[in-house]
Amino acid sequence: MTDRRGFLAGVSLALAAPPVVARSFHRKDPDPMTRLISFRRPDGTPSFGRLDGETVHDLGAPGAPAWLKDVLDQDLAALPATGAFARADVRLLPVVPNPGKILCVGLNYATHVAETGREQKEFPAIFTRWADTLIADGEPLVRPRETTRFDYEGELAVVIGKGGRRIARADAAQHIAGYSVFNDGSARDWQRHNIQFTPGKNYPDTGAFGPALVLPDEVDDLGSQRVQTRLNGELVQDQPVSDMIWDIAFVIEYCSTFTPLEPGDVIVTGTPGGVGDKRTPPLYMKAGDVCEISVGTIGTLTNPVIDEI
Amino acid sequence: MTDRRGFLAGVSLALAAPPVVARSFHRKDPDPMTRLISFRRPDGTPSFGRLDGETVHDLGAPGAPAWLKDVLDQDLAALPATGAFARADVRLLPVVPNPGKILCVGLNYATHVAETGREQKEFPAIFTRWADTLIADGEPLVRPRETTRFDYEGELAVVIGKGGRRIARADAAQHIAGYSVFNDGSARDWQRHNIQFTPGKNYPDTGAFGPALVLPDEVDDLGSQRVQTRLNGELVQDQPVSDMIWDIAFVIEYCSTFTPLEPGDVIVTGTPGGVGDKRTPPLYMKAGDVCEISVGTIGTLTNPVIDEI
Repeated sequence: MTDRRGFLAGVSLALAAPPVVARSFHRKDPDPMTRLISFRRPDGTPSFGRLDGETVHDLGAPGAPAWLKDVLDQDLAALPATGAFARADVRLLPVVPNPGKILCVGLNYATHVAETGREQKEFPAIFTRWADTLIADGEPLVRPRETTRFDYEGELAVVIGKGGRRIARADAAQHIAGYSVFNDGSARDWQRHNIQFTPGKNYPDTGAFGPALVLPDEVDDLGSQRVQTRLNGELVQDQPVSDMIWDIAFVIEYCSTFTPLEPGDVIVTGTPGGVGDKRTPPLYMKAGDVCEISVGTIGTLTNPVIDEI
Repeated sequence: MTDRRGFLAGVSLALAAPPVVARSFHRKDPDPMTRLISFRRPDGTPSFGRLDGETVHDLGAPGAPAWLKDVLDQDLAALPATGAFARADVRLLPVVPNPGKILCVGLNYATHVAETGREQKEFPAIFTRWADTLIADGEPLVRPRETTRFDYEGELAVVIGKGGRRIARADAAQHIAGYSVFNDGSARDWQRHNIQFTPGKNYPDTGAFGPALVLPDEVDDLGSQRVQTRLNGELVQDQPVSDMIWDIAFVIEYCSTFTPLEPGDVIVTGTPGGVGDKRTPPLYMKAGDVCEISVGTIGTLTNPVIDEI
């Protein structure tokens, strides 16, 4: 592996690729960006498509289940529509409803490392989620019965397009299908029952992921996009992506060293300082709350909070 | 949840159920136990079956891929054979080649907690593997290029039969399809790059799992079965299952509290003291070694070690 730290050096070059020309070929509405979503059609079958204002252009094969991860290694801006629905007639799914792997980076912003009282190490902390923890934009985050310490974590999500193993940092940008927004909802007590985070990070309906996938070449200056979390409107996390300790290209290189990455795998890149558990007094999510996470032009993920019945 | 510690109290009652009568209905050879395996047929399709000396009785639907996890909620001793192969003509697969979840218990034997210098907590440490790390009995454990600290961990594996959520400790035995043997091969440096174990536990071809699944009612006194690891014939780990800090019933209760368990999910129950990394001098696995793990009558898992090319 090459040097371990840097601020999106490898990726930002690729991101600076011709955005305006590329856009004009496939978008005509006021939102200049391609926004790919996964959804259930009115007949209940899953598909994926392009969100265009109040219209969803279906990009899946008609009449059959279709999954976004199966096309992520293709030219996503050029996929032909097979039908259209009113947005109100479809049910949004997590951006990738069925990723094979979800790799979460812990302790990737110095402010968060500091507030947890942990030491900054030479390599990132990587923990995992299973896909059955995921919910879509708009769906409720469910506070598990067993915790009152249900916390938010606003994060940038990277979705893998082309799989690979031991992807060099310089090649990492070629393996990114796009970006989205993630709320890594955490049961803090269960996360700290012992030294591994798994229990607190894998309750069902605690990982919000959406609303849409945006394409790398349509995001201008990724590093300057701010990860902002608002709980009931109050801004509680707010830092630019460039504050990451380990940048996206490094994280792809690091993770793909020990595990093969496949199309649709998700890397959740870590949360800035300001988590509820480390505030004085602590600020946890409870029924009736609304948690909203934005990552600049990439999108805003909004989820109400309910108690598990 | 009920009280958190005990020594197989919930499970051992169920395990003491009538073993001899049950056996005589479906086994006539000198090995009194049903041993279920997953394998590739000579035509390459995956299936599962019953090992009977040098014969493999195919239990999958003929001519199609068949997976053990799809029948684990059925009466495994009563599955009808659909064909037979000579053992030499099939290629063994990991007992469950495609589990949805692999939950690994860290720090579940006091001797191992002590040798790591860690504190014993009130709850177990749970980390995860992905299924693409698994290999079968007889296949080589592959030392990753990036580590010279490739270590063994002999463990009892529990395979879930009937899925469930928030399974009470008293009901846990009903959810166990059977037991097998696991070598939780670990890249110790990558495991300790930061505070989460994921990178060191998820290199491909480092999780040996087999050779066979044995049925709970055919294991007499599970607690007294010894987890024994031999590296090149030298006994390096040797403790009874009853030395677990958190017993199987508790671990099922605990894990199913935060995540739904499904048929075929695997719980790897932790390793006794004696790991190579904590020996003086350290003892790591290297090309040409053979690592053998036995758990009493449950089976012996044997894997050579090779270097990644």
